[in-house]
Amino acid sequence: MYVLRNILLLLTFLGVIAQIACYIVEPGPTVRATKGAVWPKPQRQISSDSFYIVRPQAFEFRVVAENCDLLQNSLQRYLDIINGSTVSQPISKNLVQKRHYYKPWRADKNFMGYLDTLDVLLTDPCKDIDLPTHEMKEQYILNITSEGTGTVLSASTIWGILRGLETFSQLLHATDEKALQINCTTIFDFPRFSHRGLLIDTSRHFIPMIKLFKTIDAMAYNKLNVFHWHITDDQSFPYQSLKYPELSEMGAYTSWYIYTPSDVQKIIRYAAARGIRVVVEFDTPGHTRSWGEAFPDLLTPCYANGVPNGQYGPMDPTKESTYSFLQKFFEEVVKVFSDQYLHLGADEVGYECWESNPDIKEYMEQHGLTSYRQLEDLFVQKLLDIVHNLKAKTIIWEEAFTNGLQLRNDTVVQVWKDWSIGGWKWTTYRATRAGLQVLLSACWYLDHLSNGGDWQKYYDCEPTDFGGSEQQKELMKGGEACMWAEVVNENNIESRVWPRASATAEKLWSAKDAETKQEAAKRLEEHTCRMNKRGIQAQPPNSAGYCIL
Amino acid sequence: MYVLRNILLLLTFLGVIAQIACYIVEPGPTVRATKGAVWPKPQRQISSDSFYIVRPQAFEFRVVAENCDLLQNSLQRYLDIINGSTVSQPISKNLVQKRHYYKPWRADKNFMGYLDTLDVLLTDPCKDIDLPTHEMKEQYILNITSEGTGTVLSASTIWGILRGLETFSQLLHATDEKALQINCTTIFDFPRFSHRGLLIDTSRHFIPMIKLFKTIDAMAYNKLNVFHWHITDDQSFPYQSLKYPELSEMGAYTSWYIYTPSDVQKIIRYAAARGIRVVVEFDTPGHTRSWGEAFPDLLTPCYANGVPNGQYGPMDPTKESTYSFLQKFFEEVVKVFSDQYLHLGADEVGYECWESNPDIKEYMEQHGLTSYRQLEDLFVQKLLDIVHNLKAKTIIWEEAFTNGLQLRNDTVVQVWKDWSIGGWKWTTYRATRAGLQVLLSACWYLDHLSNGGDWQKYYDCEPTDFGGSEQQKELMKGGEACMWAEVVNENNIESRVWPRASATAEKLWSAKDAETKQEAAKRLEEHTCRMNKRGIQAQPPNSAGYCIL
Repeated sequence: MYVLRNILLLLTFLGVIAQIACYIVEPGPTVRATKGAVWPKPQRQISSDSFYIVRPQAFEFRVVAENCDLLQNSLQRYLDIINGSTVSQPISKNLVQKRHYYKPWRADKNFMGYLDTLDVLLTDPCKDIDLPTHEMKEQYILNITSEGTGTVLSASTIWGILRGLETFSQLLHATDEKALQINCTTIFDFPRFSHRGLLIDTSRHFIPMIKLFKTIDAMAYNKLNVFHWHITDDQSFPYQSLKYPELSEMGAYTSWYIYTPSDVQKIIRYAAARGIRVVVEFDTPGHTRSWGEAFPDLLTPCYANGVPNGQYGPMDPTKESTYSFLQKFFEEVVKVFSDQYLHLGADEVGYECWESNPDIKEYMEQHGLTSYRQLEDLFVQKLLDIVHNLKAKTIIWEEAFTNGLQLRNDTVVQVWKDWSIGGWKWTTYRATRAGLQVLLSACWYLDHLSNGGDWQKYYDCEPTDFGGSEQQKELMKGGEACMWAEVVNENNIESRVWPRASATAEKLWSAKDAETKQEAAKRLEEHTCRMNKRGIQAQPPNSAGYCIL
Repeated sequence: MYVLRNILLLLTFLGVIAQIACYIVEPGPTVRATKGAVWPKPQRQISSDSFYIVRPQAFEFRVVAENCDLLQNSLQRYLDIINGSTVSQPISKNLVQKRHYYKPWRADKNFMGYLDTLDVLLTDPCKDIDLPTHEMKEQYILNITSEGTGTVLSASTIWGILRGLETFSQLLHATDEKALQINCTTIFDFPRFSHRGLLIDTSRHFIPMIKLFKTIDAMAYNKLNVFHWHITDDQSFPYQSLKYPELSEMGAYTSWYIYTPSDVQKIIRYAAARGIRVVVEFDTPGHTRSWGEAFPDLLTPCYANGVPNGQYGPMDPTKESTYSFLQKFFEEVVKVFSDQYLHLGADEVGYECWESNPDIKEYMEQHGLTSYRQLEDLFVQKLLDIVHNLKAKTIIWEEAFTNGLQLRNDTVVQVWKDWSIGGWKWTTYRATRAGLQVLLSACWYLDHLSNGGDWQKYYDCEPTDFGGSEQQKELMKGGEACMWAEVVNENNIESRVWPRASATAEKLWSAKDAETKQEAAKRLEEHTCRMNKRGIQAQPPNSAGYCIL
């Protein structure tokens, strides 16, 4: 009794402590935003006090080497952003006068003059049909010099130019008189990880096109490069298939909450124009209830007391018809979504329904399968074969690995559980030890909410901090912030994703330990305000502050 | 060692359990929304299958007794809402035809005809200058009958009529053909608690007028009746005072992030037109750093090593000048904000700065004060006297009570801590035992986030569940959901408050145990969609679903 009482006391005590820890948000001081600091932090940057003033109406980009529509459109986009940097701010009449007639910078010894052009030097040819790939090079050099060497943005690829343009636009900052200032700066920049993604779930709640476009805009502002489209799930099937239009006809929430083939192409083009890949996920064999609205035979009927109970479980791995359906379906998917990678899901497969079903049992006995894990393996192997034959590479959630399935060694494992034994570090250690590439998401589940500005928690996560050899660490390809949409729709997606996913973006782009959280907080205050100015409804990152639109 | 190891093991285990409990959001099925169900649930409602169709263009309210502009404006507002219920939905050409030419309801045996008028019977005279008070009567009767007795909304006060109009607008629901249907219904309704509030903090982040108006709109849709305006705090002072304009000139974030006298009157009028009181809070003696930007002498200078360290603590309770300033300031406040109640704050007063200050020490010795609690008491007593002499009643946060200060017995104590010893129940028990009125907020801190749709947690909270006598329970006057703005600004305030505060609204209006959470979920799904249709960016309440705008 005594021991029990003590344990109960301890539990109560811990409960109280946990509550206090959870609930108290210290009212912090106002975080002063930086001016013209870049997010994510560039790999190498040298800045001086010397500065130019940019007059948006006079400013232009000058293409001095390779050119294409993709580049031209990007330059126009950034001209618009630069123009927008000044116009949206309320300016008093007095200030307008100041701006035009009183130019205090002219008296500043650091004033270098007006910057009216930025040379854009792209060395590799670019084609307008180019799509970004997982191997794209994003390195760029940006030189805003005070000497005769001129101001140049250079990169070998259009993708590098895009990242550099974003950086250039961020260096510009409004002076007190609402003029645009840029300090002399040399930046040599490249991403630390090649895969820097954001998952958007469009099944639990439908997310309208306009919000997907804005999401992709914001991704570009954060140098993220993979839009992971978790397009279907149990709850709804908004993807309009060409071969199987019944899937969305029956499985979408309503006939206008769908993504038509034209919508999908618009998203792919819109993302590509910003150097962002679209990796689609059709999650199977679990998370497929919505497929069953039109094609119930794909799913396993669940039984109770020896008869079907009207419920459905995961896809039925015992029927050839399942695979011939998936063969045709993924033939289409591979054509429609042009990225080299497909995400096949394979997470959270529950065995209860399979266990209840006598046909499954019979099949297993006939085929010598002794566990449901083997049955899952059978399904995943067949699906991997189908997709492999379609020349697609695959990403799967960690269960396919941790359940011991045999995976091709070019499969990418996305680690998402942080409460598994040993946490994400142990899973990552094991997967990389097995020679598999890994993407980390466990630290960055945007649906996990906590009080206060929780971007700091995301910022603490170091993707290579899982032990293992250098060789293993090289298999860490990056990660993704995940916006599962159980309690998210068009009304809160922007403010819930941003700027929290910005923390992930910096962890995946910038050098390891590039900056302290205290310093990052000031840059993130500016970056969030910058996103707000560009029309993204990001929530405030810190516990007090303001942003003048 | 063995014991220590076991404790560590236990802690790890508990940590893991806690994490799992925190993180797993069960993907739930789509919650089917009700049609024409009222939120908050009326006290008594009888409905039948008989129904009318309302043709918005033909429909009108008919005032059959007392009338005034306040009433006329409300009727117009609800006519607009009723019209908006149909126009914002995308309708296929086919459906438009159906709606105009094919009227399937005509073949329905329950169809009673078209409802073109609702009689509005207000028995007490109403004046356009009327402001709602804490004693306002909100009871109403709504009769949509199938017999000759007609369709009538009746109430003794304009406030009851307002609540009834909201109910009427919610009973209307779109049929599949986008016609508006209303079932025959008799409702007798009144609030369970008289004080049903929402606190908005406009200091940690500035909230623009347009968002305050939308917040008040949404409050009306939820029958909340007190807008608790936590207008200043440490971080900024956006209230533009007539007597002391320096307060916002120096203490606001910027010169346009202020509420002018005209803004304040607009908010009060806008809220009053919706039957909502505006109770302003000027929090003292703590949470006052921003006051010190213009008037540093109001605050206590903090000392380190015998000299002032440049920091400031709570207001200085030892100076007469503090009180003469507050006297003049609150004279203005009482005039500007016309509600009978003022919220004086008095929460979270830290003693460290007082302790460090030699002048404070000297004062205490001279005046025989032996504890800082007595010093706090001195301040609060003087402030209560000032405000009492200005004929205002006061609300204060629980610390003023739990710290043992002497309070007048008409003071209302707002209970907000749920991690204090014994939690909010014990504090409430003690305060009501001392004969003080109580408002509950501890269950409804909207800045405390948890995964998934956490409105259920709010819904579980029962304000009278604190033990005590019937007499004590009568001192429970209601409660408030609190939106502290540390991580909230115009970008996320709507989606963070709604529909979570709707749960609070129902707990405070509807009968005790009026409904199960499962049934409430369906109504809240409809109510959230209803708010969305009316332009409120409420987030989805449940883990899957959709709303057709």
